[in-house]
Amino acid sequence: MSKVRVAAFSVSLDGFGAGARQDLQNPLGVRGTEAHEWFFQTDVFKKIQGQSGITDAIKQIAESHGGGSRGVDSDMAAQSFENVGAWILGRNMFGPVRGSWQDESWKGRWGTNPPFHTPCFVLTHFGRAPLVMEGGTTFYFVTDGVKPALDKAKEVARGQDVRIGGGVSTIRQYLGAGLIDELHLAFAPVLLGEGEQLFSGMNLHSFGFAPFKTIMGENAMHVFLRK
Amino acid sequence: MSKVRVAAFSVSLDGFGAGARQDLQNPLGVRGTEAHEWFFQTDVFKKIQGQSGITDAIKQIAESHGGGSRGVDSDMAAQSFENVGAWILGRNMFGPVRGSWQDESWKGRWGTNPPFHTPCFVLTHFGRAPLVMEGGTTFYFVTDGVKPALDKAKEVARGQDVRIGGGVSTIRQYLGAGLIDELHLAFAPVLLGEGEQLFSGMNLHSFGFAPFKTIMGENAMHVFLRK
Repeated sequence: MSKVRVAAFSVSLDGFGAGARQDLQNPLGVRGTEAHEWFFQTDVFKKIQGQSGITDAIKQIAESHGGGSRGVDSDMAAQSFENVGAWILGRNMFGPVRGSWQDESWKGRWGTNPPFHTPCFVLTHFGRAPLVMEGGTTFYFVTDGVKPALDKAKEVARGQDVRIGGGVSTIRQYLGAGLIDELHLAFAPVLLGEGEQLFSGMNLHSFGFAPFKTIMGENAMHVFLRK
Repeated sequence: MSKVRVAAFSVSLDGFGAGARQDLQNPLGVRGTEAHEWFFQTDVFKKIQGQSGITDAIKQIAESHGGGSRGVDSDMAAQSFENVGAWILGRNMFGPVRGSWQDESWKGRWGTNPPFHTPCFVLTHFGRAPLVMEGGTTFYFVTDGVKPALDKAKEVARGQDVRIGGGVSTIRQYLGAGLIDELHLAFAPVLLGEGEQLFSGMNLHSFGFAPFKTIMGENAMHVFLRK
């Protein structure tokens, strides 16, 4: 059955899904990349690197990791991309541009061939024409809210899952609206100290979520939650 | 070298070290026991049960678990009791009595032979004569604050570690005072939703803490942090 899911989403010990002060040099916020080390070390990430001209910030991250490992974390990363028919991304995850699009030059952080390979719906207050990339990714800019974006994503996903890619604010909006079926969170042994809290003020237990599967990876604890 | 440490302290995915509405029936707060399942299943816990006439609430917990497992979680639990020369406990961990001691009948939650087997300093605003238990545990009631309690504990620990047993409020007080050297936290795949937050408003990264060892157990991720 088609699900709306969050997958392979990294969370620090202190509950942050991103570091503070996100910008072009720190797309995941200051030290935010540390929560994703488990992913950067996998062959899944290495393959993504190989596919496309990624942005400098992500290239630097990639180069600082040997990468290419196979194992539990790699399986978890691979699984997160399986059976996904459409993605939804927050505008801040798509890029550092704020306010209206000054021109159409920003095409995402992932180079010419992004790792999504499906339609991707970007939540924004500012309309823009769809952006067709290599490899099957098309970015659609949705200005009428989280529910309409999800309806559009479900329509094109044709029975496959819709993956809510992030960031934290986007996931929290979908959680708050009761629209998420399943979350796979990767708890990383990292203290970020500040940044964007995934859980703060949000009682997932009262929303009906409970863990149904836990898998210990080499560098993260993978917990699957559903209603 | 002698350390002041927190050990085998269970934390939920959403950052709670205890559930809400702690009382006699729920010594760890509502559903707080769920974060400790990794511990209840170990042979270390089974041995503690066997030693003493534990209180009804803890007995019920114990009976609901098969217990007795050996493995990584069990090793982590055993290690937490090693080389400990004194304990410090918050008064709410010692028992449900609030305000002044109405009589001397409450002798802790752990029966006649508590699992500490060392001097135990209980932080309280209300003085009381020391309480000598079986097996080497003596409860001392300290009314002059966290630093004097630690000084007393260090003195009697004779070079062994001082373990800050909890609960959350006690650990946060010692963290805030900069008096903790090392924390071993056991992250449990449980959503408590509400209760006592260990990290909230406390930036452990800015305090200088960083993970130096992570061990994946059968039912918890064990992370060791130090300055």
